[in-house]
Amino acid sequence: MSATILLTGFMPFGGERTNPSWQVAAKFDRATIGGAAVRAWELPVNLKRAGQALAGALQMARPEAILGLGQAGGRTALSIEQVAINLVDERRTRETGGAIGGKPIVAGAPDAYFTRLPVAAILRALARAEIPAERSLSAGIFICNAAMYLALHATRDNPAMPVGFIHLPYATAQAARHRAAPSMSLEMMAAGVEIALKVIARSLARPRREAAT
Amino acid sequence: MSATILLTGFMPFGGERTNPSWQVAAKFDRATIGGAAVRAWELPVNLKRAGQALAGALQMARPEAILGLGQAGGRTALSIEQVAINLVDERRTRETGGAIGGKPIVAGAPDAYFTRLPVAAILRALARAEIPAERSLSAGIFICNAAMYLALHATRDNPAMPVGFIHLPYATAQAARHRAAPSMSLEMMAAGVEIALKVIARSLARPRREAAT
Amino acid sequence: MSATILLTGFMPFGGERTNPSWQVAAKFDRATIGGAAVRAWELPVNLKRAGQALAGALQMARPEAILGLGQAGGRTALSIEQVAINLVDERRTRETGGAIGGKPIVAGAPDAYFTRLPVAAILRALARAEIPAERSLSAGIFICNAAMYLALHATRDNPAMPVGFIHLPYATAQAARHRAAPSMSLEMMAAGVEIALKVIARSLARPRREAAT
Amino acid sequence: MSATILLTGFMPFGGERTNPSWQVAAKFDRATIGGAAVRAWELPVNLKRAGQALAGALQMARPEAILGLGQAGGRTALSIEQVAINLVDERRTRETGGAIGGKPIVAGAPDAYFTRLPVAAILRALARAEIPAERSLSAGIFICNAAMYLALHATRDNPAMPVGFIHLPYATAQAARHRAAPSMSLEMMAAGVEIALKVIARSLARPRREAAT
Repeated sequence: MSATILLTGFMPFGGERTNPSWQVAAKFDRATIGGAAVRAWELPVNLKRAGQALAGALQMARPEAILGLGQAGGRTALSIEQVAINLVDERRTRETGGAIGGKPIVAGAPDAYFTRLPVAAILRALARAEIPAERSLSAGIFICNAAMYLALHATRDNPAMPVGFIHLPYATAQAARHRAAPSMSLEMMAAGVEIALKVIARSLARPRREAAT
Repeated sequence: MSATILLTGFMPFGGERTNPSWQVAAKFDRATIGGAAVRAWELPVNLKRAGQALAGALQMARPEAILGLGQAGGRTALSIEQVAINLVDERRTRETGGAIGGKPIVAGAPDAYFTRLPVAAILRALARAEIPAERSLSAGIFICNAAMYLALHATRDNPAMPVGFIHLPYATAQAARHRAAPSMSLEMMAAGVEIALKVIARSLARPRREAAT
Repeated sequence: MSATILLTGFMPFGGERTNPSWQVAAKFDRATIGGAAVRAWELPVNLKRAGQALAGALQMARPEAILGLGQAGGRTALSIEQVAINLVDERRTRETGGAIGGKPIVAGAPDAYFTRLPVAAILRALARAEIPAERSLSAGIFICNAAMYLALHATRDNPAMPVGFIHLPYATAQAARHRAAPSMSLEMMAAGVEIALKVIARSLARPRREAAT
Repeated sequence: MSATILLTGFMPFGGERTNPSWQVAAKFDRATIGGAAVRAWELPVNLKRAGQALAGALQMARPEAILGLGQAGGRTALSIEQVAINLVDERRTRETGGAIGGKPIVAGAPDAYFTRLPVAAILRALARAEIPAERSLSAGIFICNAAMYLALHATRDNPAMPVGFIHLPYATAQAARHRAAPSMSLEMMAAGVEIALKVIARSLARPRREAAT
């Protein structure tokens, strides 16, 4: 039986009619990528309900890896997030967190978790494909960071399990309404996410082959 | 006989191996767009030789309209330039012009020429196609601005002739090497330029039909 | 009798309670700087009335030089404007001009006028004083650009007369309310404007001495 | 006996001749602020030696609070850092961390520590004084983040001890050489740091008074 990768995206928010994170995730639902079965799941933009949806997805899909996708309008490239912090401010729909505020996502849990994605391998593969990408040192303080934190927290006893998050720029159709905002085509975002899924699937396959030897 | 639109692009510069302005322009050479014949011409990134190449192109192609394309790394959208100024600083390969310097492109000529493109119609058509675009109030102080100025100056006795310039962002393949730089796919740039050419061709066709009535 | 420099600033706009351009200009009213008498004048943020106020100031003060000051929130340094364009869009309170729109400031007048300030000398003097400054290639499409254009147009028959415009960043007190906006202290803005006035005064004094010889 | 606050700054790096973080810290050495004795300490821009210097300072000064200062050229305001991560890339002198790379600062230690400064109170006091400031969600991946992490790690058994870090923008004299970079005067940075020290001193004094009651 093949491994399962849970791929999450978000519903639209902040006045946008679409959310590229779900538009991209939906493309891969039920697909087999790099030998792994992908299951896509749409999360609401609300801390409590996103947490419930994620818990449900983990129970239903029982994934061997989790890749979260979210929108970060203003970013210029696919952003592989390095770290999720235990802080959320639901009043904010922006990524910066410059204002005072925020509360723990999980009371008593660690201040932060590093990504468990093979970041360097994903960035190398994206560079080979000439898709703009970067590592990001902050996933913000809104629901995206919270979803990444919750996924890492839920799987904290499984340190070898690849779990992480990629922020997407505005899609070009969104940027056509946000004058002078950087953007990327949905096609290129999807191509980049497919590459990330392949690298993750390969990292899942490797230990098994070794085990079989 | 159909009208001719001269479409110029530039050779690579500033350490780049490609220049999207010529990659896009070359796609339309000898094409018929909106009833107009497009002739593409590649300009060197050098004031004197670009001026000579442009003069040669005008003599050979005898165009009814001129659309210049150039690269402005750092822009986030197709930039329809509003104005070309009579100032050039060849030492600079950047767009900002923040440093002291510069000399007139054409001694004794006006300080600036406004674009003679149908800017509002082009921007409306690009918005309908969901291609990120904006009007720009500065074409910089380098060869792109100079090419736009020279084209407007050479055709100054023909105020109804559509002449102008569009700056292109980094192509995605370039941005994959310039971490965190905004970019646009070559396909979308080409789609946007085709739309601009169509709007220009339509503006050429209209007076003729009226004349025929 | 000493030469007179007209120094203009603007009333607050765009929801701001203060406008650093007038706060700085007011400091120098009736001052003697570099041997020149400075007269400060406050302009309303409205095309028609700003034009009337400027015309009145020219008639009253009969200046030998004009330095306009304006606010450009978002700039990081004193911006010596290179060019004023014959285009204004009063609906906009932003500097970018990215949207479609605008009409001529003076119908039938040239598309643009270059500054007649000694820009290089001002930038050198500001650099010596370690005050952040740059040349800017666009004064925008709002009232600041219009005031610069009108001053250059009104004095177009006097090409040796120093006339130009400096855009100021947010004052620090403004930036404390605009999170993450760049800013400069009013004291440093005033020090920079005083240096510009000195360089302008010196350029006025020189031809006279020569004439006296 | 009064409480001691350790205030650290860094030596110049990245081609700069000065580092505002030490210029500001040095102003407060041996000062008494809000009833607390300030001891300033200069750290080298090198992970191993910065760690040794910090350990020495903690042993010598035995502080009740630690405030680290560092330079983050490109920031527009005083940045109160929210979190320090257990990752360092000494090859980088930039703040972004966009490239692949990095290793743990302390092997086996937590992925991150949240600041233990009274961030909201500091930001409110800075806003009252009209000094531009913001909370920052990433201290980068260079020595500044490492110094913050090491200070929080060294004092991890004392969760009530105020420990944290403030990033400073370019000083105006630096920005005068980095065209178009945002900046702040050294005087305003020092005024902001003094306010932060006062808020920290007050937070130290409060529990004692309560204990005395």
